Amino acid sequence: MASASFTTSSQPTSNKLLFRQLFEKESSTYTYLLADASHPDKPALLIDPVDKTVERDLSLVKELGLKLIYAMNTHVHADHVTGSGLMKNKVPGLKSIISKASKSKADLLIEAGDKIYFGDLFLEVRATPGHTLGCVTYVTGEGPDQPQPRMAFTGDAILIRGCGRTDFQGGSSQQLYESVHSQIFTLPKDTLIYPAHDYKGLTVSTVGEEMLYNPRLTKDEESFKNIMANLNLSYPKMIDIAVPANMVCGLQDISAKPVEATSN
Amino acid sequence: MASASFTTSSQPTSNKLLFRQLFEKESSTYTYLLADASHPDKPALLIDPVDKTVERDLSLVKELGLKLIYAMNTHVHADHVTGSGLMKNKVPGLKSIISKASKSKADLLIEAGDKIYFGDLFLEVRATPGHTLGCVTYVTGEGPDQPQPRMAFTGDAILIRGCGRTDFQGGSSQQLYESVHSQIFTLPKDTLIYPAHDYKGLTVSTVGEEMLYNPRLTKDEESFKNIMANLNLSYPKMIDIAVPANMVCGLQDISAKPVEATSN
Ligand SMILES: [Fe+2]
Ligand SMILES: [Fe+2]
Repeated sequence: MASASFTTSSQPTSNKLLFRQLFEKESSTYTYLLADASHPDKPALLIDPVDKTVERDLSLVKELGLKLIYAMNTHVHADHVTGSGLMKNKVPGLKSIISKASKSKADLLIEAGDKIYFGDLFLEVRATPGHTLGCVTYVTGEGPDQPQPRMAFTGDAILIRGCGRTDFQGGSSQQLYESVHSQIFTLPKDTLIYPAHDYKGLTVSTVGEEMLYNPRLTKDEESFKNIMANLNLSYPKMIDIAVPANMVCGLQDISAKPVEATSN
Repeated sequence: MASASFTTSSQPTSNKLLFRQLFEKESSTYTYLLADASHPDKPALLIDPVDKTVERDLSLVKELGLKLIYAMNTHVHADHVTGSGLMKNKVPGLKSIISKASKSKADLLIEAGDKIYFGDLFLEVRATPGHTLGCVTYVTGEGPDQPQPRMAFTGDAILIRGCGRTDFQGGSSQQLYESVHSQIFTLPKDTLIYPAHDYKGLTVSTVGEEMLYNPRLTKDEESFKNIMANLNLSYPKMIDIAVPANMVCGLQDISAKPVEATSN
């Protein structure tokens, strides 16, 4: 049966991984906390933190006894401001991460093939442009201690039963189609997909599921391009604030504003 | 270090379990889908389905190739109408479940100590009154195939860093305190806590974490009762619709309304 390959063992399993999915309601953004809990330092990273939930995230990091080392971004978001800038002000030594292809400023500019270690665990970088020109997907590594099934943090490249729009920030529907098919759909079918957003309350999917049920990316390339060309979406209300801020990983604030997280 | 006991292996691990957490934004309710994916029928259950997300939930069940056998409720909710009634209209053979102590109508009335099997997996019922007089917590079983760490679906008995209010529906702060301390805090510290709600975007906690950081339930009983007596919460706007509907597990609708889920 077609569904058999992705319906077993739907949780990432690792003796080392601590994992938390976090949700920011206003922009429907998921932030992900990953840590190597078996390492004496408990090194941790956040993927796609949001400025409005910085206090919540840092308080959780503290309660869990983790050492936050990276605030990572999958891409230059247009719908919210990244939390990486505010966090850098509050966590000494914390490094912000974004792709070199995004042409943004950050402490570490990563590209396809890079490995980002936290303790004995690591994430691999895959280039998945198309929603923006600098989008990447972070995928947990392969190896005895790494989570099984693998986990893919896809940003807006692929969403659960959807995908990010392709009509600004260097977006290209053709490029997005190629990215998903070559970089995500080639992962094992049980790979868990953790997107940057969900608007219906779904929290996770799998590569196998999206290969069968994604209403856009299961189509052929021409149909996909047609769908994406005819979405008739409105101009994102946050884009003129969010994009410039995110191009510097949230560091626009530092001189202008008091060093306080916006509470929600 | 105090946090060590709950920061390893934070995902439930089982070769058989398929698990999905689902969120309903308006009432900030979590619905949980569990299935035995290794069983030929893939029997599945939903905990605390919401009427507004019935279509979403059933569509996921179908795509995953599952056979939904139970629509379970942790208690008579005051903030939303359960999806169990609408689902019974759409899924032949589906049985609704609630506690006998809730004095509600359902296909199966469960009580403390009952085991609810789905394939080779099962949930145990623990009585955790105090938010309402009929609140129960469903806890995954112990045994070689059962998820490890265990998972506790606590309804509103304990929330992440909080708990349900105790000022209506037979609520009692003393009873809630006793329920949490005797029925939940006695579980292994790495037991995952999946509540019926979260208002800050947190998705899961552990018994160990709540024993250290729950701002209410870490207090002594007298302080807890004081806190609960002085919350000054307003009257829940949905209660006069939700409680009567939920006392019959959502079956109030069946003759009065066309058999269609409210879409959100
Ligand atoms: Fe985006
Ligand atoms: Fe409730």
